[in-house]
Amino acid sequence: MSDQDRIEIHPEPVYGAGIWHFATYVDRYATDGYGEPRTVLDAIKLAGAVDDLAVVDLNWPFPPGNVSTAEVKDALAEEGLRAIAVTPEFYTGKFAKGGFTNPDPAVRRQAIELVAGSAEVGRELGVDYVKLWPGQDGYDYPFQADYTDLWDKSVDAVRELALAFPDLRFAIEYKPREPRNRMVFSSMARTLLAIEDMAVDNVGVLLDFGHSLYGGETPAEAARMAIARNRLFAIDVNDNFRGWDDDMVVGSVHLLETFEFFFALRDAGWDGVWQLDQFPFREDSVEAATAGIRTMRAFHHALDHLDRDALAAAQSAQDALRAQRIAKRALYRALAESESV
Amino acid sequence: MSDQDRIEIHPEPVYGAGIWHFATYVDRYATDGYGEPRTVLDAIKLAGAVDDLAVVDLNWPFPPGNVSTAEVKDALAEEGLRAIAVTPEFYTGKFAKGGFTNPDPAVRRQAIELVAGSAEVGRELGVDYVKLWPGQDGYDYPFQADYTDLWDKSVDAVRELALAFPDLRFAIEYKPREPRNRMVFSSMARTLLAIEDMAVDNVGVLLDFGHSLYGGETPAEAARMAIARNRLFAIDVNDNFRGWDDDMVVGSVHLLETFEFFFALRDAGWDGVWQLDQFPFREDSVEAATAGIRTMRAFHHALDHLDRDALAAAQSAQDALRAQRIAKRALYRALAESESV
Amino acid sequence: MSDQDRIEIHPEPVYGAGIWHFATYVDRYATDGYGEPRTVLDAIKLAGAVDDLAVVDLNWPFPPGNVSTAEVKDALAEEGLRAIAVTPEFYTGKFAKGGFTNPDPAVRRQAIELVAGSAEVGRELGVDYVKLWPGQDGYDYPFQADYTDLWDKSVDAVRELALAFPDLRFAIEYKPREPRNRMVFSSMARTLLAIEDMAVDNVGVLLDFGHSLYGGETPAEAARMAIARNRLFAIDVNDNFRGWDDDMVVGSVHLLETFEFFFALRDAGWDGVWQLDQFPFREDSVEAATAGIRTMRAFHHALDHLDRDALAAAQSAQDALRAQRIAKRALYRALAESESV
Amino acid sequence: MSDQDRIEIHPEPVYGAGIWHFATYVDRYATDGYGEPRTVLDAIKLAGAVDDLAVVDLNWPFPPGNVSTAEVKDALAEEGLRAIAVTPEFYTGKFAKGGFTNPDPAVRRQAIELVAGSAEVGRELGVDYVKLWPGQDGYDYPFQADYTDLWDKSVDAVRELALAFPDLRFAIEYKPREPRNRMVFSSMARTLLAIEDMAVDNVGVLLDFGHSLYGGETPAEAARMAIARNRLFAIDVNDNFRGWDDDMVVGSVHLLETFEFFFALRDAGWDGVWQLDQFPFREDSVEAATAGIRTMRAFHHALDHLDRDALAAAQSAQDALRAQRIAKRALYRALAESESV
Repeated sequence: MSDQDRIEIHPEPVYGAGIWHFATYVDRYATDGYGEPRTVLDAIKLAGAVDDLAVVDLNWPFPPGNVSTAEVKDALAEEGLRAIAVTPEFYTGKFAKGGFTNPDPAVRRQAIELVAGSAEVGRELGVDYVKLWPGQDGYDYPFQADYTDLWDKSVDAVRELALAFPDLRFAIEYKPREPRNRMVFSSMARTLLAIEDMAVDNVGVLLDFGHSLYGGETPAEAARMAIARNRLFAIDVNDNFRGWDDDMVVGSVHLLETFEFFFALRDAGWDGVWQLDQFPFREDSVEAATAGIRTMRAFHHALDHLDRDALAAAQSAQDALRAQRIAKRALYRALAESESV
Repeated sequence: MSDQDRIEIHPEPVYGAGIWHFATYVDRYATDGYGEPRTVLDAIKLAGAVDDLAVVDLNWPFPPGNVSTAEVKDALAEEGLRAIAVTPEFYTGKFAKGGFTNPDPAVRRQAIELVAGSAEVGRELGVDYVKLWPGQDGYDYPFQADYTDLWDKSVDAVRELALAFPDLRFAIEYKPREPRNRMVFSSMARTLLAIEDMAVDNVGVLLDFGHSLYGGETPAEAARMAIARNRLFAIDVNDNFRGWDDDMVVGSVHLLETFEFFFALRDAGWDGVWQLDQFPFREDSVEAATAGIRTMRAFHHALDHLDRDALAAAQSAQDALRAQRIAKRALYRALAESESV
Repeated sequence: MSDQDRIEIHPEPVYGAGIWHFATYVDRYATDGYGEPRTVLDAIKLAGAVDDLAVVDLNWPFPPGNVSTAEVKDALAEEGLRAIAVTPEFYTGKFAKGGFTNPDPAVRRQAIELVAGSAEVGRELGVDYVKLWPGQDGYDYPFQADYTDLWDKSVDAVRELALAFPDLRFAIEYKPREPRNRMVFSSMARTLLAIEDMAVDNVGVLLDFGHSLYGGETPAEAARMAIARNRLFAIDVNDNFRGWDDDMVVGSVHLLETFEFFFALRDAGWDGVWQLDQFPFREDSVEAATAGIRTMRAFHHALDHLDRDALAAAQSAQDALRAQRIAKRALYRALAESESV
Repeated sequence: MSDQDRIEIHPEPVYGAGIWHFATYVDRYATDGYGEPRTVLDAIKLAGAVDDLAVVDLNWPFPPGNVSTAEVKDALAEEGLRAIAVTPEFYTGKFAKGGFTNPDPAVRRQAIELVAGSAEVGRELGVDYVKLWPGQDGYDYPFQADYTDLWDKSVDAVRELALAFPDLRFAIEYKPREPRNRMVFSSMARTLLAIEDMAVDNVGVLLDFGHSLYGGETPAEAARMAIARNRLFAIDVNDNFRGWDDDMVVGSVHLLETFEFFFALRDAGWDGVWQLDQFPFREDSVEAATAGIRTMRAFHHALDHLDRDALAAAQSAQDALRAQRIAKRALYRALAESESV
């Protein structure tokens, strides 16, 4: 066999990152923070220092809260970056018992209005989608919640937003848990069912590789399912130890499954942004992003060299050893080249 | 508050069990078995020894394979039992790489025909549903499978069966894994999406409490979701340590969540059989079933005394402590009475 | 059988709590906090409002950092509380890459000195032990750390402290992970091995029920192991969903295993404080503590009524069903009484 | 930097496998088996077909039970294989409630005698160690067991065997669970503590990579701990999805952590056999072994090229990104070469 015969050169994907990749963090122990606080403008400057990073997803209100859209636009322009998305922060302390599902109707309304505000900013920035991550929408204890009520409120809120902004797209990022012990939008399939219940066209899913992985899904399989329903609006990648959303650097643990995920995207003809959602608590954020992109680029090259016919034949026989070998052959060569630079 | 005012006496539910509860087992270490093999007739006799057990779900072909339907009917009659379901065994060695999704079309056909055979027997026995547990339909390694293909074959096979037996109902039992490392019907939401793709009325879900639990779901929430779509055809209960399908006795670990599950069923007006799927590898099977039913009966009585208005109020405020206290008050009293006998 | 014959009335245990139970929290999403910040003095006042709470474990430096020992003493006296322990905070941002194991010797020295400072305050307060929770001592990525070096530095630091304060006792709280992805003192057995390596008498273990549970241990078994080696200096209790340190209210998920844990303590003659380590992120902290103590008190009464001879007989036959029934009989009665008040 | 300067050529390790790698299996569903049964002689023939496989660990009594030691010797000689170990099967049906810890003293005695019998055969075969895997020694339910009793019986039985065969070495293989829900020798540290309690020199640990991984350990760290105490008698490798003992082919999921494990072995000067414990339920066993050895050989070559000084420097700074990059540079090159053949 000669791999040379089968090369398909695809254009390089666009690489992106959540702007929080370049922030610093707190947790319940290091309440004073892992590093000094950074404004969105600081973070944009760092993002600009990462080669090949082209787009960013921006939290809104822009941290620490008093930065204008104009300032953000200027900062992006200066760094040659584009805003792919805006992420409204309706998961702060005020929304501790829920954003879309808060027991207090006034707080629920504030959550919806916050998202609406972000949507308007998103329009101004020309984003591809508004990201919805209802992190506080869920529950913590057995018997605490009326599950039907949580579901209905979640569906209703997103539908309302989708109808209010028909020119925009909304991408729901599901996650099994954290910060709530259990979340409403907890898996790909549940989120797709909820989107059906919304009965609108402009709502889809953001598949975060790590969320999918520690939620017990096979991310490549979840991606196929969403693409088949035209609902995969965006993806985020990172890695973890399969028990929590560790947001580690791409490929640092689950190399083969991450490669399989990108294979699924390309094989299905999905052409969105390859985007990082890493949290470098104790690492240099520019280096962490660079490392993540280096690995994604190796995946990209590996896919050019992957013997797809042979893989399809192995898969149609469910021949795990042969399929893995075909995938590894392409992957390891590309990784070796990538790391030898 | 007086609990007395709020008592709602419901009729006792019908209690059931998978007949395999009364079998013996092998695993990859004790290949010689945990106890002597038992035929389905032996198992029916043991089932008959359990007070309050009224219905059983029967593996087919009837173990060890040479037992006739007439013999089974007689044995059931003798013990005063009824067959609620039939479970075709399309997960044995022959189907190691899949039943509905086997790479070999001939084996796939055998799987479908095996189910069809069981359906005919089910008709004869007057069962409520044919249970589909495609245990070997899945994959083991990254890159081994074409997920879309597995999905399509699974959907097609069940649809074909549903159309072939329009007078019967088919209940898919989902499970995250085992014996395959990953299964096609792995969660409630995925299974509901697959059922939609089938576009038939006579396919629903069997929710196994343990599968749901170790799959990361909240079983009560999964039940609500299926009931809302009129697809909860049956349930099985047991318990585990949340990492594997341990099939332990009901309530031996997750008492409160199991009670919440039965609360969800009654609250939603679901009136199916309360059925055991325990595997007493090292326990007396009659005692294990008796213990499971004792706990289920305590749940039943506790539900009669549960202050539902107070619970609804606590839930609408997401007051976890209050909601738990209301649930515990009813539960502990019923359990104390149950254990004091 | 008459349970009456077997009652053994034990004196009520002393109930305690980490003072952080009465604080408010931040996490990486709600960076603005779940509620307004509270000083240690605020928290002591809340702790004082919990009936039956007698002792508290105090973070040091006393939050928010500028509270004097005299003020704390006065506040404790006012609320009728005693300091059972002091918990030095060598897991804040400065120690992001480790306290005892920080790559920078100067930071390592600061960690040791911080603990030493807390030990002096502990002496002044008359605590029973200094709690060591080296939350940042661990690692996050494969290949990141020299494990032998982390071990040696951890052992050396604790030994140095133990030798410097021979009149005090130090209790290491182990935990599988968080905030680091992996921690040095990650399990009971590893911690006992480390303590052996220290070769001092005044270092032991604080067993946190939740840490043990989500670390895959059986907490009752871990307790037995530590008691057999005279190293169980203290315990903390809470609950979780077995995948993370959720720090939920005692008994809200794993009722029977928590009861088994307290059974192990009493059966082995351990007579320390029954202490809460709950994090009521979204709950009223006084109510959460009250609920935890209510359940612990029910355990206490249940243990008085537990038929220990019958239990021993069932255990010596490994008769799971009988053993569980004996335990449940005592437990449910006590819980029913407790909840009926 | 030039990697060339740092190459250290180590002799090729000896590769081995458990002979069960070449057996067929049953589980609780495919009770008729994944393939036709094979005798130990069949399995030895298959093992002989694997290039580079030099030693095997043999179940005893030799499956299916009626094969003589002389026959096994001849078969090994014919295939150019050596017996590195013997694994007594004291985890079959008879020992369902325990081997060393069985409640029935007569069964306990049978377990000890079975091991003694295997030790004599092991002597005759010239094995390096007798492997002890007390798979049924544990418990399934809360309250079922007296943990101190299980511990004491386990320690006593192994000590008795070690004293009876002072010329042999015994290697305990720990595992968190399966077939019991919880096992006595469940982690590296617990096993080391038990070995201390035995107070003999000829008992050590067999570290199974997969057991360590799904037990929440970092296998490289566990290996270091055992080597530091001179107790790492043997290792087995495989892979899994971190939730169960899937016994998949080496490197199919956790490539980097497996490489780190072998790095730890070599770095600590450990020079035992690199041994497979894979269960190819649905794969060709010769191909699966070949694939596992191919990956191990790539690790071996990668270690020759690993820049250890640079890695040590990165680790001493806990610089995760740099450490990973150094490891990956060596690893990916070796893997690419390995797969290009």
